Amino acid sequence: MLKAVVLLSGGLDSATTLAIARTKQYECYALSIDYNQRNRSELIAAQKVAKSLNVQEQQIIKVDLATFGGSALTDKAIDVPNANTKNSIPVTYVPARNTIMLSLALAWAETLDCYDIFIGVNAVDYSGYPDCRQEYIDAFTKMANLATKTAIEGNKITIHTPLISWSKEKIIRTGISLGIDYSMTVSCYQADTYGLACGVCDACQIRRKGFNQAAVIDPTCYETNL
Amino acid sequence: MLKAVVLLSGGLDSATTLAIARTKQYECYALSIDYNQRNRSELIAAQKVAKSLNVQEQQIIKVDLATFGGSALTDKAIDVPNANTKNSIPVTYVPARNTIMLSLALAWAETLDCYDIFIGVNAVDYSGYPDCRQEYIDAFTKMANLATKTAIEGNKITIHTPLISWSKEKIIRTGISLGIDYSMTVSCYQADTYGLACGVCDACQIRRKGFNQAAVIDPTCYETNL
Repeated sequence: MLKAVVLLSGGLDSATTLAIARTKQYECYALSIDYNQRNRSELIAAQKVAKSLNVQEQQIIKVDLATFGGSALTDKAIDVPNANTKNSIPVTYVPARNTIMLSLALAWAETLDCYDIFIGVNAVDYSGYPDCRQEYIDAFTKMANLATKTAIEGNKITIHTPLISWSKEKIIRTGISLGIDYSMTVSCYQADTYGLACGVCDACQIRRKGFNQAAVIDPTCYETNL
Repeated sequence: MLKAVVLLSGGLDSATTLAIARTKQYECYALSIDYNQRNRSELIAAQKVAKSLNVQEQQIIKVDLATFGGSALTDKAIDVPNANTKNSIPVTYVPARNTIMLSLALAWAETLDCYDIFIGVNAVDYSGYPDCRQEYIDAFTKMANLATKTAIEGNKITIHTPLISWSKEKIIRTGISLGIDYSMTVSCYQADTYGLACGVCDACQIRRKGFNQAAVIDPTCYETNL
């Protein structure tokens, strides 16, 4: 059975990605990153999802990106804005986050003799982050295949992005068909400790719209109903 | 004054790289990574070097790569071998280490509005690690320029590798001419808490040979004299 490292944030997309990796018969190793994000309920959600989808192993690695600051997701002095209406990269962007996460996934994969990494990036219903695009993933893949001992030894590392061109509607429909209980997941950028979502941030609005378009009941508890 | 993030391990190469960045008139921000390396004296050395070379700021970021294991530098169950005589990547290779370190440097650089990163990789007198080669650095640079908000906004990120094609002899001669006190630095893979070097591992042997060829007195305290 082939192994895969799956980046698991606790959100809707990464849960769906994990479920998809399982349907492809991978033995899944879930990697969650405690980057000192303000939304601590994400990591609890990641543990629930990992357990419910029977991963082989889960690791939660700490790396304190709040030290660097520069993002509303790590710095309480920067307000999380309501939905991103401007055509620009919002303050919820965390500098180099996906690069750091994929690098850590690459390290774990190498020690597991695993050549497949899954990440739930999405370039359709998303917040405009540069590190969610296919050209970025392609460049990371090329770099990974030069960076590692495993690649030098002739193994090809693949970064799987099954959701990259899917709408949130399609992601939700697929996840439901794979039996995911989305009530375990947390998308909100500023959910409280118990996972109560604000309902108004970019992530909440994209999630709400997705459930609405998929004609599926949204199991999320929102603080603000629209 | 332009800013630069300089990866500083506490070894000879990164200290020289920092001194070179200063000669290029950069305001230097030293980034050291506590990856739970067995050689803890490295981080003390990094602090001494940062202070002696008057960096603007130093950050020491923790990310526990020992969790993943797979390297003699993080796992006490794997012996550090004597000098690498085989033509293969040795067990001292740490999976994806430079990729993780450069990713963290990229994150900090972005929050500092800084577009220049220095790393002391060397592809001449080194241990054969894949992530020390120019083609790897080129691929990382390309990826970094797609990954980040700063790049999307039109700023070009450059990874500077001033030592990449230098012999250890040249590195030491340059460092001496720039006034570096190499007694502060630690190269040994298994130095003790006080920085006492084993004298026989790959890193020690490359260092000894470099001082010898540069005709400079080696200030290192070795446990084993050859």
